[in-house]
Amino acid sequence: MKILVTGAAGFIASNLIPRLLARGDEVAGIDNFFLGKREYLAEHPRFTFHEMDLLDLDRVAALVAQFKPDRVWHLAANSDISFGTKYTDFDLKGGTLVTYNVLESMRRADVKEIVFSSSGAVYGEPTVMPTPEDYGPILPISLYAASKVACETLITAFAHNYDLRAWIYRFGNVVGPNPTHGVIYDFVLRLRDDPTKLVVLGDGTQAKPYVYVEDTLDGMEFGIAHAREHVSVHNLAVDDQTSVREIAEWTIEAMGIDRATIDVQYGDSPRGWRGDVPQVQLDTRRMTALGWTPKHSSAEAVRRTIAEVVEQFT
Amino acid sequence: MKILVTGAAGFIASNLIPRLLARGDEVAGIDNFFLGKREYLAEHPRFTFHEMDLLDLDRVAALVAQFKPDRVWHLAANSDISFGTKYTDFDLKGGTLVTYNVLESMRRADVKEIVFSSSGAVYGEPTVMPTPEDYGPILPISLYAASKVACETLITAFAHNYDLRAWIYRFGNVVGPNPTHGVIYDFVLRLRDDPTKLVVLGDGTQAKPYVYVEDTLDGMEFGIAHAREHVSVHNLAVDDQTSVREIAEWTIEAMGIDRATIDVQYGDSPRGWRGDVPQVQLDTRRMTALGWTPKHSSAEAVRRTIAEVVEQFT
Repeated sequence: MKILVTGAAGFIASNLIPRLLARGDEVAGIDNFFLGKREYLAEHPRFTFHEMDLLDLDRVAALVAQFKPDRVWHLAANSDISFGTKYTDFDLKGGTLVTYNVLESMRRADVKEIVFSSSGAVYGEPTVMPTPEDYGPILPISLYAASKVACETLITAFAHNYDLRAWIYRFGNVVGPNPTHGVIYDFVLRLRDDPTKLVVLGDGTQAKPYVYVEDTLDGMEFGIAHAREHVSVHNLAVDDQTSVREIAEWTIEAMGIDRATIDVQYGDSPRGWRGDVPQVQLDTRRMTALGWTPKHSSAEAVRRTIAEVVEQFT
Repeated sequence: MKILVTGAAGFIASNLIPRLLARGDEVAGIDNFFLGKREYLAEHPRFTFHEMDLLDLDRVAALVAQFKPDRVWHLAANSDISFGTKYTDFDLKGGTLVTYNVLESMRRADVKEIVFSSSGAVYGEPTVMPTPEDYGPILPISLYAASKVACETLITAFAHNYDLRAWIYRFGNVVGPNPTHGVIYDFVLRLRDDPTKLVVLGDGTQAKPYVYVEDTLDGMEFGIAHAREHVSVHNLAVDDQTSVREIAEWTIEAMGIDRATIDVQYGDSPRGWRGDVPQVQLDTRRMTALGWTPKHSSAEAVRRTIAEVVEQFT
């Protein structure tokens, strides 16, 4: 089938696109290289790349009309949550407006299927943990998460009014090769540059479910094949959590740094930064009930990713 | 205290502002007269009006910085839900972007309190009725409601990151004098122009809780005084529902039209238009637990409003 992927040079898309191509799909990708990297782009006769800002509705609509995909994987987003607190219109533009442009382009070209990468951050600091998909009220604490909710609801409204089918996934922290951001990538680069010191945002107790990217993609495709709803919403996560302190220690170990020679400095706050949700646990039973479980635990996903990122960047 | 009201020439604000002035507040109002009416504006030495489009961030920010309100009642919105299905960026601009501009202007000027008029439409077509505030997942079916959710989450994220206090109210159908839209206003104007025929969108079975505007304002002020949360979310409604068919019959009766001489034409669909939620029941127990109940039932609110709107417009 014909698939359009936004954020094509980003972390998740660069892991997705080779899978799509391997099964014979024709793929068009869009990226503006804000976070995506040119070297992550696929090279393949059935892959075409379009350097484009999704804020440019006219160009996006023209491409969608011309390529006429059967399905859009809309993965483009600002994934640096703290950035959105500094520049308050950052996620509004890079998340909400961009998603509107994708949906409007689909509507105009009569494209009917969208897969969307939302986030467990939408729940804010919930009173129920692990948090299920039907938790409410949704009170996100970051502009990043606020924008993810705005995107989810634009998708559901477009789906209702223009007969789209949509699969929305609220991710845990997705990790794996080809990172563009995130704590593992950040620690590895900083330790490569200075193996004598590691400054950690927050006190290191922040703990989240880390999901290996291949598991994430397996889960998304499983949902596409098996979810029955017109608009399905699924948490995509694992049941265990990994703390920032564990990630720091494991990264130091994986880089072969002698623990006695490095000064690891933790902050005082249980929160990494304003808008960071320090403790995340997502209820995974809805995916399990559908028939899917991840292959890697959070600890396994983190350890495997550390090894891969160290290999890739040092 | 100093209060800024957006949508100052609109239905709810034109009922609010005289109350604020009567208790001694200093009030500044903004409106662009898209739906608001110049004749609904207050005239009072403690009221200043600013004709302005809330999409113009620079002007709004300058006004907020200069007036320095203690609290903002952000009531401006597209209230014509069907319009948003025709023009897909209408609620995105007139709801989401406008609300961002209000919040960003408040952040820059260090204004700390916002009251927001959301809608029971955020729940879409919920599986639980009456629908409580903690219902999820939120899957709205109109772009209007999608934008209300986007606004709610922008408010919660700004509240968390910049220490705002916020009161969010998810309204039933608010009715009363000074309407700018809505089924009662629409029926009265059409019957005034042609008392021989009334064409009704949908089959007339659509039924919603109608809330009298003074009750709505009482409830909002009660919540401001008594809610304890940093960001409070309350349904503001009544427990009974009124059907479109009842509204049509009562309006015909109130206008003194002989039922035998008028051709009332109902549609076939239980839904008034795409994106319309045909059956709405909002769980009001959270407001009741706070200590507040409305004075008018839905039927009383509708009958009183029909009389007032007939008086005002015929």
